[in-house]
This record gives sequence, C-alpha cells and structure tokens, in this order.
Amino acid sequence: MSDILETVYQGQPETPCLDHGFVRLVDVMPRVLPDGESSCDYAIAEAARTSYKKGTQRVRSDRDLIRYLMRHRHSTPFEMVEFKFHCKMPIFVARQWIRHRTASVNEQSARYSQMTDEFYLPELENVRTQSQINKQCSDGQLPEGLAQQILDELKEYNEQTYQAYQNYLKEGMAREQARMILPNNVYTEWYWKIDLHNLLHFLALRCDPHAQQEIRVYADAMVELITPVVPLTMEAWNTYHPLRNAITLTGLEVEALKDYLSSQDNPAPPAIDSTNKREQAEWNDKARQLGFSI
Amino acid sequence: MSDILETVYQGQPETPCLDHGFVRLVDVMPRVLPDGESSCDYAIAEAARTSYKKGTQRVRSDRDLIRYLMRHRHSTPFEMVEFKFHCKMPIFVARQWIRHRTASVNEQSARYSQMTDEFYLPELENVRTQSQINKQCSDGQLPEGLAQQILDELKEYNEQTYQAYQNYLKEGMAREQARMILPNNVYTEWYWKIDLHNLLHFLALRCDPHAQQEIRVYADAMVELITPVVPLTMEAWNTYHPLRNAITLTGLEVEALKDYLSSQDNPAPPAIDSTNKREQAEWNDKARQLGFSI
Amino acid sequence: MSDILETVYQGQPETPCLDHGFVRLVDVMPRVLPDGESSCDYAIAEAARTSYKKGTQRVRSDRDLIRYLMRHRHSTPFEMVEFKFHCKMPIFVARQWIRHRTASVNEQSARYSQMTDEFYLPELENVRTQSQINKQCSDGQLPEGLAQQILDELKEYNEQTYQAYQNYLKEGMAREQARMILPNNVYTEWYWKIDLHNLLHFLALRCDPHAQQEIRVYADAMVELITPVVPLTMEAWNTYHPLRNAITLTGLEVEALKDYLSSQDNPAPPAIDSTNKREQAEWNDKARQLGFSI
Amino acid sequence: MSDILETVYQGQPETPCLDHGFVRLVDVMPRVLPDGESSCDYAIAEAARTSYKKGTQRVRSDRDLIRYLMRHRHSTPFEMVEFKFHCKMPIFVARQWIRHRTASVNEQSARYSQMTDEFYLPELENVRTQSQINKQCSDGQLPEGLAQQILDELKEYNEQTYQAYQNYLKEGMAREQARMILPNNVYTEWYWKIDLHNLLHFLALRCDPHAQQEIRVYADAMVELITPVVPLTMEAWNTYHPLRNAITLTGLEVEALKDYLSSQDNPAPPAIDSTNKREQAEWNDKARQLGFSI
Repeated sequence: MSDILETVYQGQPETPCLDHGFVRLVDVMPRVLPDGESSCDYAIAEAARTSYKKGTQRVRSDRDLIRYLMRHRHSTPFEMVEFKFHCKMPIFVARQWIRHRTASVNEQSARYSQMTDEFYLPELENVRTQSQINKQCSDGQLPEGLAQQILDELKEYNEQTYQAYQNYLKEGMAREQARMILPNNVYTEWYWKIDLHNLLHFLALRCDPHAQQEIRVYADAMVELITPVVPLTMEAWNTYHPLRNAITLTGLEVEALKDYLSSQDNPAPPAIDSTNKREQAEWNDKARQLGFSI
Repeated sequence: MSDILETVYQGQPETPCLDHGFVRLVDVMPRVLPDGESSCDYAIAEAARTSYKKGTQRVRSDRDLIRYLMRHRHSTPFEMVEFKFHCKMPIFVARQWIRHRTASVNEQSARYSQMTDEFYLPELENVRTQSQINKQCSDGQLPEGLAQQILDELKEYNEQTYQAYQNYLKEGMAREQARMILPNNVYTEWYWKIDLHNLLHFLALRCDPHAQQEIRVYADAMVELITPVVPLTMEAWNTYHPLRNAITLTGLEVEALKDYLSSQDNPAPPAIDSTNKREQAEWNDKARQLGFSI
Repeated sequence: MSDILETVYQGQPETPCLDHGFVRLVDVMPRVLPDGESSCDYAIAEAARTSYKKGTQRVRSDRDLIRYLMRHRHSTPFEMVEFKFHCKMPIFVARQWIRHRTASVNEQSARYSQMTDEFYLPELENVRTQSQINKQCSDGQLPEGLAQQILDELKEYNEQTYQAYQNYLKEGMAREQARMILPNNVYTEWYWKIDLHNLLHFLALRCDPHAQQEIRVYADAMVELITPVVPLTMEAWNTYHPLRNAITLTGLEVEALKDYLSSQDNPAPPAIDSTNKREQAEWNDKARQLGFSI
Repeated sequence: MSDILETVYQGQPETPCLDHGFVRLVDVMPRVLPDGESSCDYAIAEAARTSYKKGTQRVRSDRDLIRYLMRHRHSTPFEMVEFKFHCKMPIFVARQWIRHRTASVNEQSARYSQMTDEFYLPELENVRTQSQINKQCSDGQLPEGLAQQILDELKEYNEQTYQAYQNYLKEGMAREQARMILPNNVYTEWYWKIDLHNLLHFLALRCDPHAQQEIRVYADAMVELITPVVPLTMEAWNTYHPLRNAITLTGLEVEALKDYLSSQDNPAPPAIDSTNKREQAEWNDKARQLGFSI
C-alpha cells in the first residue's frame, strides 16, 4: 500500500494564490492506495462496480468506466472521493465560494480572534475595467497610471482601517463589532471539505472565463492539485464537461445545424430561430468553435 | 390576486399512474399570483432580479430572463418555486425515486400501520424483455401467452403473500417484521416536497427513455401537472436541457464535426477519435439527430 | 379557503431590523388554508398522518400531534411548511447567516450592480465591549463618549470609502474589483427560502443569547413573523427546544442530580464529576434554572 | 506517520450483521495519522482550532475541546472526519437507512444485475410480537412453536419466489420487472459514505431502543467499528447526547423539578402540568432515571 499524498505531494506545501492567499491539499479519501493502484480513480470505479454487483470482475478498464460515468453525468461514484483543503482568501472571494452549499467549512471566526493585517491588492496590470458586454464581468486593463493611483489609495485605506480596527480593540470594543470597519479585501481562511462530484461542479463554474479572476486563481490551483490524484477523472472531465471542451447545443442550435448540414450547396453560416441578441451571440461563439467564420 | 391551484386544478384531482398509483399536486409556492401575473414563473424572475438589484425595473421580459437562466444553468432562482405532491407507487419505484436526496418526504410507515392489499401488475402488453444492448434496460414485449402466465402467477403470489401477512399480524407478529414477506410490487405512498430546480433534475433523469417505464409514468404525469403552473420554465427546459431537445457534444465530437465542416468536399459522416464502441454508438445517435445518415 | 398572508400580514410590510435593514415574509407554503383550518400547522399534521396512514381519521388533535413530533425531534413533517423571506442586512451579518446551508438564496450581486450607500452603525448605547468570559461574545456597553467617537469615525470612513468606490466606478474600474474597498458593514440583500424544520434550527441558534446581537434582531423578527402562521408549532418549540425552555442535562449532570435527590438530608447543591471549569460553569447555570442557589 | 486502518483493523474484515449481512469499514478520512497522534479525533480539533485561528497553539487539550464542541452541538468540526462503509442488508432495512439523506450511496442495481439468493430470516427467539404501547415497535417474543411455523413458511416463500424470479429471467423477462416478485427481506448491498457529524445523528436514532432491532444491529456494529478511530468523540457522544446518557428536560419538566426542589418537605414525586398521557409517561421514564420511584 502507498500513501497518495506522500508520493505525490511530498509534504503538502501551500500553492500561493493572489498576494497573500493559498490553497493547500490537506487530505484525500482514499489516501492509501492498494497495491497495484496508482491513483484514487480506483475508488470511483470500485463504487460503480458495486452498483453493477460485478465484484472483482473487471469487464471494462477503470478508464473506460470513468469516461462512461462522466459522459452520462453519473454523480454518486464521484462522490466516493473526498478532498480537504486549507485555503486563505479575501472575504469577497470567500463570499462567492461559500455559495456552494455541498461542502463542509470551518472558517476563522472574527468574533473569536483578531483578524490579521493582510489585504488583497491586485497586481498593477490586473486592475481591470468593467466589461461593456457582460454586465457582471471585467474585460480590460485600467491605464497603469490610474491603476497605480487606485492601488496606492487602497493600500492607504487598508492601513488606516486596520489601525482603527486595532485601536477599537485596544479600547475594549467587542471584536464582533470592531470588524465592521474592515474592508472586503481583508483575508480570511478556512478548512474546506468536499467530495469530487461537487468539487468538479465548483471547478467547472469557477474555472470558467466568466468567473471572477480572483476566484479562478483558486479553482485553477485546485485543478493542478487534484489532477495527479485522479488523473483519469480529470481527463474525462476535460473531454466531456460542457464548461471544458464539450459544447451543449440548444434545441434551436441543433435545428440550425441540421438545416445547414442537409443543404446541398453550403450556404452562409447557420442562424438560429431566435431574435434574442444574447442567445444569437452565444450561438456565434459556439459556431466559431465548430469552425464557422462568424 | 388569484389562486393558481384553484384556477388550474379545480380541486387537485389525482392523476392515475400504473394500476393503483397516482400523483396529486397538493401545493405550490407561490400559490397566489399577484394581479397581472398569470403563472408562477414570475417568482423565478423576481428572485433573479433581486440578484441584479433591479427592483421593479424590467429590462428583459420574464420569458427572456428565464430562458437565459435556463441556458446558463442558473439554479437558485428556480429553487424559489416549490411543489408538494402526494404520490402512491410500488416499493421498487419508491426505491428509485428516493435516491434523489434533495426533497422532503413523509412516507407511510409499515412499522406503524398495516400495508394495504394493492400490488402492481403491468398490463399484458407491458411485460417487457431484457435489453441485449443496454444491460440496465428493457426493450421489447414478452410473448403474450408467456406474459399472461407470469401475470397470473404474480397475482397468485401476491394474494398468497398478503394472506400470509395478514395471518402473521393476527397471530400477533410485529408489523415491522411481518412486512418482510411482502413483495417489491406492493404499493406505498408519500408526501414529496421539492423545489423546481431539483424537480427538473429529477424529471430530466426520469422522463429519459433510459429510465424504467414504471417511474417514467410518474415523471411524465408531473410534467403535465406543473406545465400550466410554470409554462415559461417548461418551454425553456424543453429547448435547452440536454435530456430534452438540446445535445451535448463531447470534445471528441466537436473535433469530429469541426473536421467535417472544414472539409471542402463533404466526405463520409464524421467519426470520433475513440475506439470505445459505446462512445461511438452514442455519437452515432447524436449524428443522426443532426441529420447524418449513419 | 382563506389566504393566510392576506389575513395575517395585510400586505406583508417590512419589519425594520438595525438601522437600514429589514425582514419581510414574502410567501409561505401552504399559503391558502382549507375551510376549517386556522393556521399552517395543519400541513404538518397532515404530512405526519400520511406516515401513519390514518387518512382523515384524527385520533389526536393537531396540537397534541405537533407537540409529540417536536418532543421527539421528528424533522420531516416540519419540512412540509416552507417560508420565503426578503431580507436586507450588513455583510458581516450575511456571512454568519449563509453558514446555514439548507436554504435557497438569491443575493444582490456586487459584480452585476452597484452597491448602495448604506452602512450599519450601532446605536450609541449598543456599542459593546468584549466579553472577558466568553471569547466570542460581547457583554457590556462602551462608555458613551468613546462610543460616540468611534461611531463618528466609522461614519466618516464609510462616507470616504463609498466616495472612493464611486470614483473607481466612474474611472471605469470593474465593479467586481471596486467593491473590495467597501467595509463589512455595508448592506446587502437577498431572497431566502427555507423549510420550517431548518428555520427552527436557524432560529434556535440565532435567537440564543450567545448569538451576535446584530443577527439576533433578524431571528427575533422572524419568530414574530411566523408565530401567527404556525402558532402550535411555535408553542411546542418554546416548551421543548433545549435552546428555549427545555434543558439538556449531560450524563454527568444526571448523575449529580440523582445523587442529590437520593440523599436524605439535602446537602449542598450537587457538583458534577468534572474538573473542567467551563463545564462546571455550564452546570451552575442549569442548576440555577432548577432553583439551586449557586 | 501511521495508517489508522492498518493499525486498528488489520485488513478491515466484515462485521456480520443478521444472518447474511455485514458492515465493513472501507476507509476513513484522515486515514493517515501524523506523528504523535493516536486517533482521528485530532482532525476535529485541528479544524475547530482553525475557526479560533490559534494555529499550533493548544490552549485546551483535544479531549476538552471535543467535549466542549459536543456539549454545544457544534457540527462542522465533526464533518471534517469522513467514513466509508460497505454494507449488506435486507431491503426493508435499506429503506429505513436511506431516509438519511446526507450520505453518498452506490447501491447494487437490480436493473443491471441479478439479485442473489439471500433472504433475511430472524432467529427463532427473535420473532417478535407487536407492542401494545408503542404502535411502531415490537416488544416481546412470539411463542416458539408459532415462530417456527412462520419461519418455515417464510423460508418456503422465499425459495418459491426466488425460483420464480429465476424462471422469469430465463424466459427473457427484463430484470427491472422480474424483481417485483422478490420480498422485502431479500438482501441488497451498498457503499455508504458519510461524515462523522451526520453519522452520529444516524447512530443516535438507530442505536435507540425504539429503532427496529434489525437496523440497530448495523448501528451498533458501526459504533464498535468507529470507536477506536475517534475514541474521544465517542466518549463525549455517550456523555452528552440526549439519546445516550444525557436527558433533555422539557420546559414543563424543568418547572416540575424546580417546584419539587424548592419544596421543604420533599413531597411526592413531581408531576408535570400536562394532561397528555404520553407526555406523562415520558416524564415518568426520565424521573426514574433521576432516581424517583414512579
């Protein structure tokens, strides 16, 4: 038997994220691999085979089985692998993160202990402008001069704020109230435990280009950390998940493509039967991925 | 204000399912529609607009908004609509059903009360043969003579079994033990409460042709029951859900289709880069839906 | 049939909480009461009776049944009642609140829309000191002069911060980044939907004297809002829940009390077999509730 | 580092339950203990200390901390330990078991594979009579002659039924339909993964004397299996959980006891202010545990 974390992680160091944050893989179930196994993927196949009541008989390779399970969105076998992370992130990132309810969390309590003097500041070239297309996204870079000015101001506010916070505590104000003054870029940390099925859902959403860059960094780091632990699953996920390399065609897009394909003389790129501009733009994106020039 | 169940259901009758079962829509949240609203879809749009902090301002119609939310797999606004059903089904159906964990259930207790004398028997033409292609499915009809013989035998077993069950109870055996003898086609019933997001997940899986026919009947009945309650949502679901009229192309299928489309002289139907027969068969199914002759 | 919200709430006004927040009961399932029923408690009894397969036969009154279910911690019948609230609270309150995972939430998005200029400031007599006994609580009042000084400073910071936030937005900075500067007392809002069983768990924890006063205000407001909707349930909750008027005696406390009761000559108040000071203090609290002078 | 399962379980054998069932502890998180640790309890303390942001500083021993967390019903630190079991049980037991929704399950599929020829039959002295006091319980032993007769009949039914099941399969009937004839005492099996907090909730309910004996056997076996893995937690659970050695006194019972204690001349045992017979009986049970003669 071998210890997957010992083999792969050699002491489980922190993967730095943003300026003061990190993700650290604390534990994984299964952590110990039976002889002959080289990754935790075996636990997924083992659970699935229990469903099939096949016992030790392996009619399909683990890889084929896992790819089948992923294509058909089977969830329970992937729930049989569990990960525990130690993470440190700014509060505004933590607030997005915690929306995923199917995880266990122990967060540092600002009622119980004093917050530390750490605040997130983006790098100069990562101070971003508001997207004009997608109302919830950013898409460009703020001019460096302006960005520098904002960063300097933010830094000063953070320092002043933290000074005030410390003063309030010294003057006897309750921690649970004094923390109110701290801005949303102050760092917090937590233990976060989640099964692989729900983690992949989290990662699909948070590795997506539409996710805020500041949380994407953490999701990308987790993909790096778990890929050597469940390589077959991650390969299947990359091939079959619609937020990775798969594409979901809506009913309207299927119709459009079908019409195009049945037409003899290859007309203009297909158009969908919808006047909704956003929906058209989404189809154009997919059509480009299929090789159309739109 | 109008009461959606009063208007639409006129007393909420039971929809019969199988020979002795039923589904009944007991309640829905929101049950009362504000003036000017005609379906519970409004509650989904209302919750989504809170996210956007748009208040009463409606930049998009409810229909456009709901279609957008469905295309992008937003889940929380659909959780804001809740359904409560009263259902009666054979135990083997109940066992599939209960695997969906995100619902509230109050089931009749065979420890507390006596099971009634009702057993599911398929109709003669619905006694099915084992599929040779899909190991978990049925796909044909058993010869009528043989089917009749099996049904007769099942009926006799059911009667004998129930007689024995009643004898055991009369002799003082505990209900919790006496029930052991009852077969898996005996009927049970429950109250089942679930939000629309999780219900649509249940329905997508259980209306699917690969679901067992005996549970599909219930799922189909629920689709009928909720469609007049959330018509915009159900329209969007039919258009955008991969288990309805949308299709998810895997990364390999996207590559195959892209190669085909970029080729000048329209060669043979595209093939995917996989030697897995099951995966090839799945692609052939999708290719046929796109109009290819395979 | 009568509409419970129409009768009781007359338009469902907001209950103010803190200086700019509120809770509003948006909806309840069941919202419409059958003839002869006067509260939503009936839906709990109805679901429980389905478990007992008693149909319309009422061997016990709804009140007795609900009290039995509450004493024995039955959870599923209480899940059959659902509440939807619209709430507005400071972010540090929202962060405590969201730890309860068994609810549906649609929160205002600071990526999508601009945060409004509203910040929580406690009332002068509610600026609290750190408890020296309980490391996570506050327990006194800061001297008014000092409190006023802190409030003035907080107000100034809030205004400066919001000014900076608006400047950043004007200069084109992405909303998702600009919000970083806003402090944790800025207000956010959400739709929050939860079943009665999980709501009572939330309320038990958040109405407790150890909960932070700033979230207790919301919990207390919700108790007021739902009591006329499920009066029998709330009566039972107050009598039977350990965080209300019931008391859980640990094994050590049972032993201490038993020894005391069996002793002839009523000695000194009983002591538990533990050297842990915190545990002793907890027992002293309970002993006082039982009438001992400790 | 040491492997907790290797040390404690020496190959993780099956614990037999009932006549053909078992529970096997497949895995635990954390499975590998850091140097200096002797049980998985450390992971609970470690997660809780993250909340307190105390880092490596241990102001309280793990035992004191875990006892504190258990007394105060903290849930999230206990969620940080995860167990995976392989279990085999009759279907009527599986149906009770699966009502606990906060676990991951992969069950043998009777659509995919043939059920095996194994049925539960209680031992002669364990054929029980219906309780006359508690409508959902059993409480005595059926006369041996009668019990033997029932067991013989059950055995014959099981054999006949299984024979018919096999005939149907041979004749080509779909597995998903043929299984209908099998009785509720046929065995099934599954992988079951659950965190410690939710497992303790399951165990509290299923080790309780009111639970059906046939599921209690499994719960008791799991208590045996996990006690050496988390000994401090199980010790605390036994002392502090109301379904173990703690007692919850309702508000009415607190009043009764207080009146009794404040009375000078030790009158008759205290009575509660309720005319409900069941509630009175429950109090009598507790009063007896406190040493009163009732």
